[in-house]
Amino acid sequence: MSDPQQATKITLDESEIPRRWYNILADLPSPPPPVLHPGTLQPVGPDDLAPLFPMALILQEVSGERYVDIPEEVLDVYRLWRPSPLYRAHRLEKALGTPAKIFYKYEGVSPAGSHKPNTAVAQAFYNAQAGIRRLTTETGAGQWGTALAFACAQFGLDCEIWMVRASYDQKPYRKIMMETFGGVVHPSPSDLTVAGRAILAEHPDSTGSLGIAISEAVEVAAQDPQTNYALGSVLNHVLLHQTVIGQEAVAQFAQIGITPDLIVGCTGGGSNFAGLMFPFLRDKLAGRINPTIRAVEPASCPSLTRGVYAYDFGDTAGMTPLMKMHTLGHEFIPDPIHAGGLRYHGMSPLISHIYELGLMEAVSKTQRECFEAGVQFARTEGIVPAPEPTHALAACIEEALRCKESGESKVILTALCGHGHLDLAAYGAYLAGTLTDHELSTEEIQEYVSSLPNVPAPA
Amino acid sequence: MSDPQQATKITLDESEIPRRWYNILADLPSPPPPVLHPGTLQPVGPDDLAPLFPMALILQEVSGERYVDIPEEVLDVYRLWRPSPLYRAHRLEKALGTPAKIFYKYEGVSPAGSHKPNTAVAQAFYNAQAGIRRLTTETGAGQWGTALAFACAQFGLDCEIWMVRASYDQKPYRKIMMETFGGVVHPSPSDLTVAGRAILAEHPDSTGSLGIAISEAVEVAAQDPQTNYALGSVLNHVLLHQTVIGQEAVAQFAQIGITPDLIVGCTGGGSNFAGLMFPFLRDKLAGRINPTIRAVEPASCPSLTRGVYAYDFGDTAGMTPLMKMHTLGHEFIPDPIHAGGLRYHGMSPLISHIYELGLMEAVSKTQRECFEAGVQFARTEGIVPAPEPTHALAACIEEALRCKESGESKVILTALCGHGHLDLAAYGAYLAGTLTDHELSTEEIQEYVSSLPNVPAPA
Repeated sequence: MSDPQQATKITLDESEIPRRWYNILADLPSPPPPVLHPGTLQPVGPDDLAPLFPMALILQEVSGERYVDIPEEVLDVYRLWRPSPLYRAHRLEKALGTPAKIFYKYEGVSPAGSHKPNTAVAQAFYNAQAGIRRLTTETGAGQWGTALAFACAQFGLDCEIWMVRASYDQKPYRKIMMETFGGVVHPSPSDLTVAGRAILAEHPDSTGSLGIAISEAVEVAAQDPQTNYALGSVLNHVLLHQTVIGQEAVAQFAQIGITPDLIVGCTGGGSNFAGLMFPFLRDKLAGRINPTIRAVEPASCPSLTRGVYAYDFGDTAGMTPLMKMHTLGHEFIPDPIHAGGLRYHGMSPLISHIYELGLMEAVSKTQRECFEAGVQFARTEGIVPAPEPTHALAACIEEALRCKESGESKVILTALCGHGHLDLAAYGAYLAGTLTDHELSTEEIQEYVSSLPNVPAPA
Repeated sequence: MSDPQQATKITLDESEIPRRWYNILADLPSPPPPVLHPGTLQPVGPDDLAPLFPMALILQEVSGERYVDIPEEVLDVYRLWRPSPLYRAHRLEKALGTPAKIFYKYEGVSPAGSHKPNTAVAQAFYNAQAGIRRLTTETGAGQWGTALAFACAQFGLDCEIWMVRASYDQKPYRKIMMETFGGVVHPSPSDLTVAGRAILAEHPDSTGSLGIAISEAVEVAAQDPQTNYALGSVLNHVLLHQTVIGQEAVAQFAQIGITPDLIVGCTGGGSNFAGLMFPFLRDKLAGRINPTIRAVEPASCPSLTRGVYAYDFGDTAGMTPLMKMHTLGHEFIPDPIHAGGLRYHGMSPLISHIYELGLMEAVSKTQRECFEAGVQFARTEGIVPAPEPTHALAACIEEALRCKESGESKVILTALCGHGHLDLAAYGAYLAGTLTDHELSTEEIQEYVSSLPNVPAPA
């Protein structure tokens, strides 16, 4: 075991937790298009966002500084699980018979079991610092709500979560985990908000959607000066906070003296993928390395590979600012696939911009292929992955098998953004053979994107 | 953070995984009483155990050697999660306002989410090496079945698990996790065995018991020369394998230059507690340190604190050899508390012997007190503990609050033997206020222990 590349776990000392977040905006050849006010169609300013977010986060959202210092109070919470381990997947490689070297950066060691606390802790801190007493948010699969409930417990904030009714009923363990951390969980639509009551009046049996839950959480936050709203992906400041993942991975690869040839991650809103790959993209833009960077999305929610690049709303009801992004249209209703974290109509504007710049590529995978990869991974590496990162694993295995054909010993890095302990029902369905896959037709996509708002090209 | 005692995580390098298991038998002032054949009442020999266990494990069961080398193939699997982290519970200490220094050794990082794979991997390896094709076992809460299914996947063995029917119905996620690792899970009683059919004939709606499930697994293993049986606690070789935990903890404390004043762990069969404390007891017996060693058991299943020290069967049906241990009687029916891993009528003979020698103490805790500690721990430290280690945490918090009164800055080490991701229903019940506690009456215990077999004192 004297060859460091042969180690199973590449770990860092607690003192090596990154002390700054990395802001990719500073290094891109051009900035992404501005976010627009839905009424005026003019770029939004800090004041437009102030009813929902503390100024520290608003400034991070628009910052052009290359690095942002991580507050000591946030670092202190990060120490509960960071640095996260980088694993060499020796046993998976052996099972595949591939000469490829497969590495995975594992974020499932966090309190919520995914990468989400990296930003939840930062957001809770800045809100507490600004004198806010309560945060509201929505949650679909439940990962984000869990992370925010945990983060709020660290800084003495109340946390109120609107959970999509379908998930609320199907995933009781997720709800209990949020409550164990002290969160208050409402099924959405709820009768606690105007938005929720309006939906219930029309559809008393509504099973909800992420869009409705966002509307409810935003409505409650906007009404109370001591309450703010928090979002778990998509926005620049969220992606910024996630760069602790990639900065650690860069240091871990430096430790073993190699660099990845391929970086592959799953994308829903894009924060986990961005967090891993931005620091590598920094080094690629600087000409130091030249990895292929590949996003993997569900075939049933293919915003990057089959959506359009256009201004669209972040929520179904059309209450948020307009963001230019790869989107299937804000009225798109994704299939009820088990990777709930990937069921979002749009892609982070920043990731969308980077994709348009040709700095990364994207592929899609069907649900069945993903769970097949997840089970193979569990049986070889011992970790049952969340349904979301099985998308990255499926693409990773595909590449490793290509290497087996070609004889290449590529270095593949994948983002294992969470464990699947609370998603085992999905594995149960896969093992029972009851999973279904729905390939979207071109007509379906065309109909959804026809709902896009009409935004004139800038002067 | 230059003071190493102030670190949140005390980690070891992969190269520091212990390469030998530690056998406490070599250092005890006297050996434990022999295990007896239930028919002849004579000490059992290796041949008596050969139909169920491979000879390598039988020899470990009776070995007097101080150290046993860990095979390279077992170490290689250990590397997936070992060394496990030792945490300093800064945030819990702060919440309690105690001058005590609280450390916890966390085994939830393993594939099964508990300490169980430490022995499951070893047992699967030795069985595979002996040419065995299939292992059978029982599981109650599901931790052990999960660990063995994972371990069998590593060495190409089939794994068949009889899961107590009540758990099988109530914990579908546990069953799916075993299946994800490739295990085959049967509800017990099943119609696959003579023992199961006999129970079902009399009680068609039986919800099963660990005793019945053991009978089924043993019956199947005994009939097929290529099938063996595996046990997850109680026996000497199981406790031996778990000593990787304590050896790592000794090294981790050496790294920060202090030693524990109190070591506290939960006990069901005793393997997790033994694994942590045996290496410290070795150093205590050698006069190098002098910690208090404290076992914590459920008030509703108090084998150490309220049972008798006598020869008894390991299973309800009375098919196993007779072991001298602290027991509530093999006909004892424990309360359906959520800490399923602690619901066993007897205590490991080795732990029982050490208790009799006065080398450790024991206390009991009610279920509600334990979950209260578990929730406080989750909200401060970010890990939702399994119901079993909440017993240790309750005792740990009790001691830390005593230190707050006295002003002592005791160093407390506790065994956090697993996470509670698959036990969240129990937290749901606690948070909903529906947990109940049943204090056993002296009359109840007297009736149970009256079923003990009559074993004459040795000549």
